[in-house]
Amino acid sequence: MASQAEYAAMRRALALAGRGLGTTSPNPVVGAVVLDIVGTVVGEGFHVKAGGPHAEVLALAAAGPRAQNGTCVVTLEPCNHTGRTPPCVQALLDAGIARVVVAVRDPFGPAAGGVEALRAAGLEVEVGVLAAEAERVNEAWLTSVRTGRPFVTWKYAASLDGRSAAVDGTSQWITGPAARADVHRLRAECDAVIVGSGTVLADDPALTVRDAPVRHGQPLRVVLDSGLRTPPTARVLDDTAPTLIFKAPGAVDGDPRLYEGAKIVTVPQAADGTGVDLHAVLAELHSRQVVSVLLEGGPRLAGSFLAAGLVDRVVGYVAPVLIGGDGLPALAGPGAPTIEAARRFRLDEITPVGPDVRLVARPVVPSAPREPAVEN
Amino acid sequence: MASQAEYAAMRRALALAGRGLGTTSPNPVVGAVVLDIVGTVVGEGFHVKAGGPHAEVLALAAAGPRAQNGTCVVTLEPCNHTGRTPPCVQALLDAGIARVVVAVRDPFGPAAGGVEALRAAGLEVEVGVLAAEAERVNEAWLTSVRTGRPFVTWKYAASLDGRSAAVDGTSQWITGPAARADVHRLRAECDAVIVGSGTVLADDPALTVRDAPVRHGQPLRVVLDSGLRTPPTARVLDDTAPTLIFKAPGAVDGDPRLYEGAKIVTVPQAADGTGVDLHAVLAELHSRQVVSVLLEGGPRLAGSFLAAGLVDRVVGYVAPVLIGGDGLPALAGPGAPTIEAARRFRLDEITPVGPDVRLVARPVVPSAPREPAVEN
Repeated sequence: MASQAEYAAMRRALALAGRGLGTTSPNPVVGAVVLDIVGTVVGEGFHVKAGGPHAEVLALAAAGPRAQNGTCVVTLEPCNHTGRTPPCVQALLDAGIARVVVAVRDPFGPAAGGVEALRAAGLEVEVGVLAAEAERVNEAWLTSVRTGRPFVTWKYAASLDGRSAAVDGTSQWITGPAARADVHRLRAECDAVIVGSGTVLADDPALTVRDAPVRHGQPLRVVLDSGLRTPPTARVLDDTAPTLIFKAPGAVDGDPRLYEGAKIVTVPQAADGTGVDLHAVLAELHSRQVVSVLLEGGPRLAGSFLAAGLVDRVVGYVAPVLIGGDGLPALAGPGAPTIEAARRFRLDEITPVGPDVRLVARPVVPSAPREPAVEN
Repeated sequence: MASQAEYAAMRRALALAGRGLGTTSPNPVVGAVVLDIVGTVVGEGFHVKAGGPHAEVLALAAAGPRAQNGTCVVTLEPCNHTGRTPPCVQALLDAGIARVVVAVRDPFGPAAGGVEALRAAGLEVEVGVLAAEAERVNEAWLTSVRTGRPFVTWKYAASLDGRSAAVDGTSQWITGPAARADVHRLRAECDAVIVGSGTVLADDPALTVRDAPVRHGQPLRVVLDSGLRTPPTARVLDDTAPTLIFKAPGAVDGDPRLYEGAKIVTVPQAADGTGVDLHAVLAELHSRQVVSVLLEGGPRLAGSFLAAGLVDRVVGYVAPVLIGGDGLPALAGPGAPTIEAARRFRLDEITPVGPDVRLVARPVVPSAPREPAVEN
């Protein structure tokens, strides 16, 4: 049983881990707190960026000799392999830590086994303290490791009646400045932003982080453009951020030599002929160490991701405005034929944002892992 | 300046007033608290039903001789006319009250003038304490008096993407049991429930209060049925609640003699030819002392009410489900051609209801009064 002091330390470690969101990719976010032998906090740390020191190492360094016979409380199983940094298991042993409290185990093959190694060395190890909260703060990285594709957040802005634009296509000011700034914060936390070529043609968005601190460089801009219709003058091709265009093998509209500002990747056409194959797109992004993507539009592309079961989180900004009539729906494409077939989510957050409200929902049934999970 | 004790008493009076919602119609809800000469609460009361004693009278009766030289704190200006009960102004004078604190003035001609009468009799009167809150609790009645038509609440249930049904029309379980029970509570607070004949034909709803305590008898069921297409076997024609059917002059489909369970009222056709004239419907309901109506469907009827500027409050139950595709929109009919032309509301309440969320919004620009408001 973890003590009250250890629970408090884990809550602190989770808050520390969250500070790494947007900068640690492709690594997980991790927070650690070291308690001395009587349970006093003597060190803390969090992982800031890949290649930099791990959270445990920072917390142990802060604690110094006071870590002797103490407890290390950490949000993710300590690694047992030498990557760009030496294994944390060894650092814990060297510091004379007697007990380790872990929130969630590391599902990443090469890094796993830390718990067993610590126990084999005679340390007391407890696993599962505040596991749900730790899963949440690392949901992008855990989804990426478990499913072999990036964690996908679908973001939309809509009126109370679910329209993302009026019939003439105007949508600029559905939500207020606070919601728009919040979208930039979301972008800054993701490794890549995805749009379809229709959105590029209609809105010519820059897709860069502007109203929020840029964390780990600008996110990668990804345009799904099976027919290579993106105009060579589009803003997504400027030099403010890297850009990747996915085209289908038969794309003929554009000349790839014109896209100086972007890398062009060819992936198969979708099975139903509507655009590129989304699984292939996400697999390619995964191979490029993209852990999290923000799907920003439009309604048909969102419908395709949903139909393919590729949405892990929905972030909706709903404005108190009614459009009605022939206003454009926030979600289009293949829909549910009956209400029983509609995709069910769980509302996890309901937050006022200026005059609007932000709704965060996740699938009731999360995405299936690549292979059966191993029982621990 | 009102004292802290008087503000506290007004908050209590507002809570008391709210307990009358659903039972006082066509009267306003009113709460009153009597403080003795040192500011101690010595009596309270609220108006329960039309014809019954007013709030001030109940509070004074509870206070007895301790009201002498005391203060009466009341949510609405005390009446100065003899209706079904004697004027409250006289009761306040008879009890020896020295000071009266009022939240909002009474816009109803025959009852107004209480403040002036009290001042003329030498009492100190303060008006405007917690006025916004008092406007809110009486919004239905105040709108009814000011505009000459019932207060209209549009209620809808929708998916995150603003669909009220899947493409096959199935909608039964978009929201959960808690939201559905909440709708019955809403119905119980209103004098009438309005649907179009399309909803009657599609869903055959009973439109009665079932999952909530019935307050002041079942609400009147109103069917807008220009062509008299309601089947004589429809549930809205059963004997569980009174029913009013509005038809257009040219209605020929049904035989009025078949509608034993309902009263039939003929009103003009709408100017655009789509159904009956909504202003005429609301005027007729107003003449029948209907103070508040709940507009329950469907999407086209809601669109017509909105386009006519006849929605005073929107209550949306949003379920964390995505329908997409050709799912039926929660709002249809005449829409906003551009985003600038869309109707803007203010989100006043955001409340989780079971797995769903309830959003309450009111127009940024409230309904215009019948005639210019008189400066007080």
